[in-house]
Amino acid sequence: MRPTRAGRRAGLAMALVGGLAVATTAATALGTDLTGHGDARRLDGDQTSSIKHEVKGGAARNVILLIGDGMGDSEITLARDYQYGAAGRLPGIDALPLTGQYTTYSLDRSNGRPDYVTDSAASGSGWATGTKTYNGAISVDVDGDAQRSLLEIARANGLRTGDVTTAELQDATPAVQVAHVSERGCYAPSSTTKKCPENALENGGAGSITEQLLGARADVTLGGGAASFRETAKAGQWQGKTLLDQAKARGYQVVTDAAGLAKVATADQKTPVLGLFADGNFATRWSGPLATHTGGAETPVRCTANPALPATQPKLADMTSKAISLLDDRGAKKGFFLQVEGASIDKQDHAANPCGQIGETVDLDEAVQAALDFAKKDGHTLVVVTADHGHSSQIVYPGTTTPGLTRTLVTADDQPLTVAYGTADEGGSQDHTGTQVRVAGYGPRAANVVGLTDQTDLFFTIRDALRLDADKPAPEEATVDNVNVSDGARLKGRVTVKVTTNVEPKYTYIELNQGGRWLTDNTKAPGSTQAGKRPTLVLDTRDYPDGAYQLKIDVVGHDGVTSEKVVHFTIANHR
Amino acid sequence: MRPTRAGRRAGLAMALVGGLAVATTAATALGTDLTGHGDARRLDGDQTSSIKHEVKGGAARNVILLIGDGMGDSEITLARDYQYGAAGRLPGIDALPLTGQYTTYSLDRSNGRPDYVTDSAASGSGWATGTKTYNGAISVDVDGDAQRSLLEIARANGLRTGDVTTAELQDATPAVQVAHVSERGCYAPSSTTKKCPENALENGGAGSITEQLLGARADVTLGGGAASFRETAKAGQWQGKTLLDQAKARGYQVVTDAAGLAKVATADQKTPVLGLFADGNFATRWSGPLATHTGGAETPVRCTANPALPATQPKLADMTSKAISLLDDRGAKKGFFLQVEGASIDKQDHAANPCGQIGETVDLDEAVQAALDFAKKDGHTLVVVTADHGHSSQIVYPGTTTPGLTRTLVTADDQPLTVAYGTADEGGSQDHTGTQVRVAGYGPRAANVVGLTDQTDLFFTIRDALRLDADKPAPEEATVDNVNVSDGARLKGRVTVKVTTNVEPKYTYIELNQGGRWLTDNTKAPGSTQAGKRPTLVLDTRDYPDGAYQLKIDVVGHDGVTSEKVVHFTIANHR
Repeated sequence: MRPTRAGRRAGLAMALVGGLAVATTAATALGTDLTGHGDARRLDGDQTSSIKHEVKGGAARNVILLIGDGMGDSEITLARDYQYGAAGRLPGIDALPLTGQYTTYSLDRSNGRPDYVTDSAASGSGWATGTKTYNGAISVDVDGDAQRSLLEIARANGLRTGDVTTAELQDATPAVQVAHVSERGCYAPSSTTKKCPENALENGGAGSITEQLLGARADVTLGGGAASFRETAKAGQWQGKTLLDQAKARGYQVVTDAAGLAKVATADQKTPVLGLFADGNFATRWSGPLATHTGGAETPVRCTANPALPATQPKLADMTSKAISLLDDRGAKKGFFLQVEGASIDKQDHAANPCGQIGETVDLDEAVQAALDFAKKDGHTLVVVTADHGHSSQIVYPGTTTPGLTRTLVTADDQPLTVAYGTADEGGSQDHTGTQVRVAGYGPRAANVVGLTDQTDLFFTIRDALRLDADKPAPEEATVDNVNVSDGARLKGRVTVKVTTNVEPKYTYIELNQGGRWLTDNTKAPGSTQAGKRPTLVLDTRDYPDGAYQLKIDVVGHDGVTSEKVVHFTIANHR
Repeated sequence: MRPTRAGRRAGLAMALVGGLAVATTAATALGTDLTGHGDARRLDGDQTSSIKHEVKGGAARNVILLIGDGMGDSEITLARDYQYGAAGRLPGIDALPLTGQYTTYSLDRSNGRPDYVTDSAASGSGWATGTKTYNGAISVDVDGDAQRSLLEIARANGLRTGDVTTAELQDATPAVQVAHVSERGCYAPSSTTKKCPENALENGGAGSITEQLLGARADVTLGGGAASFRETAKAGQWQGKTLLDQAKARGYQVVTDAAGLAKVATADQKTPVLGLFADGNFATRWSGPLATHTGGAETPVRCTANPALPATQPKLADMTSKAISLLDDRGAKKGFFLQVEGASIDKQDHAANPCGQIGETVDLDEAVQAALDFAKKDGHTLVVVTADHGHSSQIVYPGTTTPGLTRTLVTADDQPLTVAYGTADEGGSQDHTGTQVRVAGYGPRAANVVGLTDQTDLFFTIRDALRLDADKPAPEEATVDNVNVSDGARLKGRVTVKVTTNVEPKYTYIELNQGGRWLTDNTKAPGSTQAGKRPTLVLDTRDYPDGAYQLKIDVVGHDGVTSEKVVHFTIANHR
């Protein structure tokens, strides 16, 4: 005999959960009786006026775009069911008031027509640049032409910018905001030479993803992928130096653990923050058994905290909160654009690891909470939460197996939930799917996510919400505008070499030399100056014999990029 | 070498489609260049004000609820990709301006806790009654108690009602609006005796789904399932008669083909319409090869019109349009509630038949177009389009195979699209999935679909949009209110037996008999009447010898239900 409703209510109250390793809020799920009329409602009445209130036009000062890589509706439901129960809510992801669906297809490079299953590269390029492209492309179009990213445009428009991920920083989703390469695998100089020779520095390209990332110079760049920074540049100003040394030379504050990140006080174009918290991708928050051919029918399991998670690795929410606090400057004229990726929902879905995948969804959800908390206080921030593509995992009848791989978990409801992965066999990589995915928004212009859109629409929504001029040039590199000594000049007596730079550089180095031999410079010569837009070198030309000389002027930007100008002149005191 | 963009544009224009058997609008997909910046946008600017305009409160005069059975986001995308191209739009389904996601979980009957994968019965019961229940339940709660449906409540409130499907009318989705049984298989008397004995008529229950459907008496009931109507009632007023005969006896206009449906001019409580267009489920619109273990890697195919489709079978859009035109009465005080189901998206997904499934999605989409066309003209109609649960089909990388079943199609883009079914093996039935699904709305209170809701919220949204009193009793059955001859009376001379009924019946039969032997009745006795609320039987008691007699009064409602009252009296002219 089945228990009566009253009996069930009592039973539910008694059914305390002993062993929920990870589900901190699970108790709420178990205390809820869902069996009565209206018990499972999520709305408490007509929400017309509250939705109307959320539909706001105007401009946004800030945009926070949070991507759950591979986080289709199935992956969202799975995480909710497991962690909060089927009637529960993901406190971040489910809290965005306006929602819709968007298409994610990419293009077939051979003919420009749709390719129905995108990868993260083409997908991210879509929202980052507003241009559809082929799988593997990092913010280049089907012809390989670079397409400007939201982060680049935002920076050009004077906004502060951030790029945060739990993956390697060179992975597709973070990369699409900061690099333009023909093949997503071109993380570092060696792979670029092989896979994207046209992008390699030594061939006159813009360099590997890592090198372009340094040039893109977001104020805040946080993630994994330290390994690529150990490679050495093959050409250009930093040839022969590691990319990590280059980063430091270019003014980046490099931090490598959660404690280091916590200590960072400012992040700007002079001293941007580069957080490298893992050699590769972050370790996952949770662990548990993989799906197998028999897993669905085996004893249901609970997920556990990943014992291999380094204590030094920040959570995505920590990185998000820190990025927001570094980027948010009420005193500044402009706001910020921040992209945050929960990367390993996808990676654990590929691995048929339900606990891994759910833990990463919960990790992203915490980041969404942090973003929403800020946005609600700020009042001028658009928050968008979406995915780049659907993925394999499906919720199937409890306890069943399929031709593919399955695993049964015990949820916050203390009920069995079976996850199936059907797109690859054991040992293979489960694959993306072509389904439309959820896109959700809060704040000014969030109504642009409602209904059916395409992911390229997101580029325009964010561009227009931030009132960005997409053609605005990037900040100028510091160069010499003028020198009061012209090429071929004849000098005598006391001379002050006066240099004017276009923008304020970090410093300007003005060297007097003869045939490449150093004679003096503005760090040595008394009365000379290095700083500001009008540095000087004070010379008494009578200290040198008459003859041919050069002034080598190196303008060193805050980004470490050096612009050199050489002026040939003659000292002629005695002729 | 890849073609240039200009070359591609020319190439696309030339790539005319020779063999698209079904895709009538496919040409648009092929003419579109998607490779340029912004080419793939679906929005043409900020839609904030248009969305704000669509967020309307107030009341709806009519509600049309369209269900794509098993039509998750993956199934929607698949149909769009195939029929209109990835950048195309389903002209009905994609046209609803307000969208969200809802949860579909059912309850575990043993403990009342969530069951993460619903079937159509529990799911439909959820929106039809606002009560979560167990898989297999038709509008009863986990304790087996009947929960009133929207259709029943709407009818009780004086609205006209309709229930339209491409499945058997006894199938779960149409059944949840008109019946209450403990197990969804209880289509007809024989199955009910076996599977739901407590619901069987002979055990004092309300009868099989078919019998309850006749009692629910929607003004318009259209679908398949004629076979069940050939069974014979086991008890009650129509014991021994077929359910089809019962339907006719109860005033239903029975039509069996598209031509017959076209001729129906009115449908109301006196003469409701019962369309039985197939013995079982409707034949599908399209056909094509099933998915198999090797299908994904085989030559891509196009879907074709189903050669076995009977010309006499109406399309879902035809049934929807007809239902709307029969139910819409501008002169009436109240509007209508209509449920429309595209049933075989699910059934063909179960069968791993991509063409079948896509054709049924397109069939539903046409019905959505019909509903939206009406709603836009009407201005007071809420249209909701959703699914009852997700399903197996996934779009995977073109040309691939999986551990399960796959099939590659050629789309309107003239590109390969591979569909995978991974939840059962060849010969088995692919299964439902537990993902949240899309819910979309247009019209008053449509904003209640935005964000995350549960499918039980839909009950309350529709109830409140229509301002229904959920406790309003169903229309009274016609019964005798009063007879001017009381039990035990002694009569003599000329007598007019005057009966008063509570509501106007179809007719009232007043018979004089003695010991069960007919003597006369109000169809024979001169001066008597049958019609109206005050029928009479005129008797001259002197025509009969003194003795004990009975008046048998049968009040026959328009719904064929007969209420009988017997009055015992004595004729005493000589004593």
